[in-house]
Amino acid sequence: MPRAVRERQMMDAAVRTFGRRGYRAASMDEIAEVAGVSKPLVYLYLHSKEELFTACIRREAAALVAAVRAGVAGSDGEPDLPADGQLWAGLTAFFTHTAEHPDGWAVLHQQARTHGEPFAAEVAAMRDELVAFVTALIGVAARDARQDPAFSDRDLSALANALVGAAESLADWANHTPGVTAKEAAGTLMNFAWTGLGGLMAGHRWSRS
Amino acid sequence: MPRAVRERQMMDAAVRTFGRRGYRAASMDEIAEVAGVSKPLVYLYLHSKEELFTACIRREAAALVAAVRAGVAGSDGEPDLPADGQLWAGLTAFFTHTAEHPDGWAVLHQQARTHGEPFAAEVAAMRDELVAFVTALIGVAARDARQDPAFSDRDLSALANALVGAAESLADWANHTPGVTAKEAAGTLMNFAWTGLGGLMAGHRWSRS
Repeated sequence: MPRAVRERQMMDAAVRTFGRRGYRAASMDEIAEVAGVSKPLVYLYLHSKEELFTACIRREAAALVAAVRAGVAGSDGEPDLPADGQLWAGLTAFFTHTAEHPDGWAVLHQQARTHGEPFAAEVAAMRDELVAFVTALIGVAARDARQDPAFSDRDLSALANALVGAAESLADWANHTPGVTAKEAAGTLMNFAWTGLGGLMAGHRWSRS
Repeated sequence: MPRAVRERQMMDAAVRTFGRRGYRAASMDEIAEVAGVSKPLVYLYLHSKEELFTACIRREAAALVAAVRAGVAGSDGEPDLPADGQLWAGLTAFFTHTAEHPDGWAVLHQQARTHGEPFAAEVAAMRDELVAFVTALIGVAARDARQDPAFSDRDLSALANALVGAAESLADWANHTPGVTAKEAAGTLMNFAWTGLGGLMAGHRWSRS
């Protein structure tokens, strides 16, 4: 079996074990067993529990960011949707990915942030990338809408931070609430973020045009 | 000096040191020095670094929840504001408190969540309390608006989770962006959460009536 395939199996097993048991409780024995390989082979390929965990964080972070970017870009790679359509596509991709990879999301959002600085810094870098991406998205929407007075960079950054924080919180909620689908979570966040609570109370709902 | 006063001084010093240096790097020596007491006295009163940190988390969590509740309740203890006014009051209280207690917020939002389960669980309990409070607030607003079809408990819980996640994220942003005031952060979140991005793009802004 090629090394790359074996390594992916080990990482899959590690993400699953770290996500479900937590970083501290997860053992290299269990990870090797889940991966169906010997423990020395795990150490040979991935060196230590710390390095394995860091590799898991990096892989899961890259996969999540790629999923959101691909969702917004659409099938032809051209983001020609209107702003709310792009946001819907990005949020749907985000919640679909976190729902399909609950262990990966647990690694990123719970485990990596609760076990000290080097791991937390890895996740912070991914988060910064998502915030920058959302800031640009809202910026284009604001420019298209020819806002007057225009939103400042600080306004846009604040709104993007609010949106990303809301999405993270909802992904956790969705993964811990039985029966919630990715579309439902994305729809809730669109209604919240796009329509606003005031609009919702007045009977407005966001709908995909 | 009464024990309660001494203990408060030690806790103040500990929150400041944990918040600025981080849990791991903070030493009992430094905490004692900042508090102006001897290290044995810190151990006598607060037993260990873990117990001291746990006590800090509990105190800061209780203070933050109390500040938000007091903000919403208003000066006479009667929340007779309309829903958006209550939300504005609660958010203003939240961002005022996190801005005035940046070390306490760093302890709750960064340190307590990045150093393992017992500490993370303390913060999760506070967060659950805030989410329940916001869920009830949105529930009253929805009932007053006689929404048809009514919001389900799940809808309300999802919206509250989105709002709390957005607020946490913005508090971090505000505390790391020079010159942002609590009112500005609260105003951004009201515009985001109450008016919605769609409304903002259409030139609507939430304003305090």
